[in-house]
Amino acid sequence: MTPDTFSERYNPAIAQTMIELGNAMPGLAQYLGIELVEFGPGTLLARAQLGENLLTPSGNVHGGVLAGIMDHITGAVIYPLMPDGHWGATTELKLNYIAPVQAGTVDAHASVLAMTKRSAVVRGELQVQDRLVCAGQGTITIVAPRTP
Amino acid sequence: MTPDTFSERYNPAIAQTMIELGNAMPGLAQYLGIELVEFGPGTLLARAQLGENLLTPSGNVHGGVLAGIMDHITGAVIYPLMPDGHWGATTELKLNYIAPVQAGTVDAHASVLAMTKRSAVVRGELQVQDRLVCAGQGTITIVAPRTP
Amino acid sequence: MTPDTFSERYNPAIAQTMIELGNAMPGLAQYLGIELVEFGPGTLLARAQLGENLLTPSGNVHGGVLAGIMDHITGAVIYPLMPDGHWGATTELKLNYIAPVQAGTVDAHASVLAMTKRSAVVRGELQVQDRLVCAGQGTITIVAPRTP
Amino acid sequence: MTPDTFSERYNPAIAQTMIELGNAMPGLAQYLGIELVEFGPGTLLARAQLGENLLTPSGNVHGGVLAGIMDHITGAVIYPLMPDGHWGATTELKLNYIAPVQAGTVDAHASVLAMTKRSAVVRGELQVQDRLVCAGQGTITIVAPRTP
Repeated sequence: MTPDTFSERYNPAIAQTMIELGNAMPGLAQYLGIELVEFGPGTLLARAQLGENLLTPSGNVHGGVLAGIMDHITGAVIYPLMPDGHWGATTELKLNYIAPVQAGTVDAHASVLAMTKRSAVVRGELQVQDRLVCAGQGTITIVAPRTP
Repeated sequence: MTPDTFSERYNPAIAQTMIELGNAMPGLAQYLGIELVEFGPGTLLARAQLGENLLTPSGNVHGGVLAGIMDHITGAVIYPLMPDGHWGATTELKLNYIAPVQAGTVDAHASVLAMTKRSAVVRGELQVQDRLVCAGQGTITIVAPRTP
Repeated sequence: MTPDTFSERYNPAIAQTMIELGNAMPGLAQYLGIELVEFGPGTLLARAQLGENLLTPSGNVHGGVLAGIMDHITGAVIYPLMPDGHWGATTELKLNYIAPVQAGTVDAHASVLAMTKRSAVVRGELQVQDRLVCAGQGTITIVAPRTP
Repeated sequence: MTPDTFSERYNPAIAQTMIELGNAMPGLAQYLGIELVEFGPGTLLARAQLGENLLTPSGNVHGGVLAGIMDHITGAVIYPLMPDGHWGATTELKLNYIAPVQAGTVDAHASVLAMTKRSAVVRGELQVQDRLVCAGQGTITIVAPRTP
């Protein structure tokens, strides 16, 4: 499956569920202020509102916060492309931190580069006011539901 | 500077401060339950107590939690090797997620592979009961204090 | 320096020299059949003609060949953006191998995501007949010429 | 399968074949001067004799050469741990280039961090006279032979 065929597999109902339930769910994503905004076939736009509590003594956002956002969005972007009930487990992820980030809004874009039945290669970009601050690339393993 | 010369540069007073102040500091590390336990010349042992609030609906710990721990420990390990007042900024980090992790205790080991005045290459390993669950490798850029 | 300002710094004379001299130079790039084709401000298109000698017993191109191409193009793309006489040293590189590659032509695209006076974050994509087969992301450190 | 169980799975006959046939095989590994020296359960020691033809105009070994060595050894190390006839395909690889390398001998160590029936996470280290010059970490996907 290459990007030009993602639209055949894209399930907007899963995307809608991800947005409605995902944003209401407590846990890391909520702590990091992440809101899933809009899915497309192989794409995801999210946004994070980073509070003062996520800074280090340097005054910049903790790198682990950006890593957490990147992990979250690159994992989420494939859900509407998988059969219902499947889930994705990040196998590996690489991040380049490009500029320090202060408290405030971060825009997060994820995209799927390639996908098979077993795995997907994904990219992510975090931006502050249209400036790239972090770029990621990783692999998601696709896990089928256990047959009872 | 290679690992066999780290002991000449190692400042135990900075290590002690990291443990005392770092563990008391609110923010991401505290949210993730991270406790810095013991520094050595180019090494760090930490521990994280992962609560149920850090799981995803799959029942496993969110990958972003492991990424956050890895970012934190690989950044912290170099402080006792730097001149006082310098700080480290993670430039890039790569993680391999090896096994799913449940709520409970994670042991976290960081080590410095090589270090110059400008940067350090570091590794991290997260373990659950002696089993490796996540391996990381990255670069920390060393930032000198601004001269007033 | 962000991508929208690369054109101010872009030196087409360096690009021309890279193409003329680089392609004539013996060494790894020639062994791998790499030809630099066209530079732009922060972009590079190259092409590699991969012979049967670069296959493994599996019948696919050796992963090290794709790694070599990726290292070469992500290193070359920044030259026209640097002051004359500076050179780039790859500090780290990450590759995702997406599909097996057979002998034949590989198109190689490199682009600069961000660049300072000291380093650049770059991406590369290798394609066979418009299909992505390998994606890379890395850091190039910029080295100034020694003053005599 | 964790490192303490690799010895149960280790097949020295495959290791012997890798050394005898592998070193005689033309292709990238031979061009890079790589010689597989000794396998163990989850470990591999190799050596590369890097000639002047592998340098760039900077006088240092081309980064793609080190990437090729790293890809080769991290792929080879798992063969004696796999059932006969299986092969390994590198899925992703990350390299940190730590110091410039000149023509001469490079020692290359690969080790397996973890392995399942489907994949292995591996590390590699390149050394010049006991000094670490390049560190790698990646994933190998295990491919079963096609049933006829």
